[in-house]
Amino acid sequence: MPQKVFFSVSMSLDGFIAPESPDELMGQQWMELQRWVFRQRFFRKNLKLGEGGEEGRDNEIVRQTFERTGASVLGKRMFDAGEGAWPEDPPFHTPVFVVTHEERAPWERQGGTIFHFVNDGIESALERAREAAGARDVRIAGGGETIVQYLNAGLIDEFHVALSPVLFGSGVRLFEGVDASRVALALVRAEPSPETTHLSYTVHPR
Amino acid sequence: MPQKVFFSVSMSLDGFIAPESPDELMGQQWMELQRWVFRQRFFRKNLKLGEGGEEGRDNEIVRQTFERTGASVLGKRMFDAGEGAWPEDPPFHTPVFVVTHEERAPWERQGGTIFHFVNDGIESALERAREAAGARDVRIAGGGETIVQYLNAGLIDEFHVALSPVLFGSGVRLFEGVDASRVALALVRAEPSPETTHLSYTVHPR
Repeated sequence: MPQKVFFSVSMSLDGFIAPESPDELMGQQWMELQRWVFRQRFFRKNLKLGEGGEEGRDNEIVRQTFERTGASVLGKRMFDAGEGAWPEDPPFHTPVFVVTHEERAPWERQGGTIFHFVNDGIESALERAREAAGARDVRIAGGGETIVQYLNAGLIDEFHVALSPVLFGSGVRLFEGVDASRVALALVRAEPSPETTHLSYTVHPR
Repeated sequence: MPQKVFFSVSMSLDGFIAPESPDELMGQQWMELQRWVFRQRFFRKNLKLGEGGEEGRDNEIVRQTFERTGASVLGKRMFDAGEGAWPEDPPFHTPVFVVTHEERAPWERQGGTIFHFVNDGIESALERAREAAGARDVRIAGGGETIVQYLNAGLIDEFHVALSPVLFGSGVRLFEGVDASRVALALVRAEPSPETTHLSYTVHPR
């Protein structure tokens, strides 16, 4: 299969993927958005949250998303939020390309994660991620603003949304600023799960 | 079963249920949002769009939504948009209560639809709709602003969203202004269909 560029996020029914600020807990809502994934064995192990966890279809989806990913691209804001939060062995275990104006030497972490800081735009970051990913796919890991930049540039092939049964009312919208006159979608698969709904789409130019 | 208050809408993946203004066509997007329903035999017949159409599970969902409804509640804006567009035999075939400041005598149409204009608020309109519906349910038929008023007042029991594979980018958001600190959801059913995804939720206070 040819290499794909994709993203995969959990979204509230009203379209949000995160609270307004990284340190805002949003009470119950944030947990309700993420609850399905925090219960999965693969996710728990990969984020060093401890052993145990579910091993059903949800877990398989989390594992497959990880295994298909040969490199990730991150926006600067998401990197900043994660930098202090990820363990010394971050959950990527691959090269990660951070789109930023900041010049910084590559930052190698335990377990195979290396952050590269790219200063010349989203196309360049993607090009480098494509090369680094080899036969595997490239994940645009977030945040929302970065995902929309890639969507509007016609650079996303497909994506997965885990639609969780919660309303945020405010926060970071996944599709804020999307150019709907250029982006068409096709539904590939909708898969019910007890605590979320897995939706897969391919992206096409209009 | 006790009488339920519900709504049922088609929503884009980025949370919109209509274009900005009723006469705006939004090109292809509006059709992509509604395409699944315009193909259903029951919908076509009920809106006098002609014979024919599909008779599968999607058609059954449209028919069941109609048959459970003993009365509808409409916001003034949606009534205004529909007044000139509905046929002489509008698709409700039940009493419809329009929440409005305008004083107006009941307007009886062909086929059992009677519009009643309610001037003393959403609770009053719902109370009258509940009575008129008898053993059947009350549908809050829209638009988005009216649905959110009922959601925030804790007056919705359950709802159905047909999530269509399209991005709008702008328009009327279904959940604009929802008070997420008071409204919790539980996922009842997610049902894939070729051109939309049927999602059913119950609503609970936080």
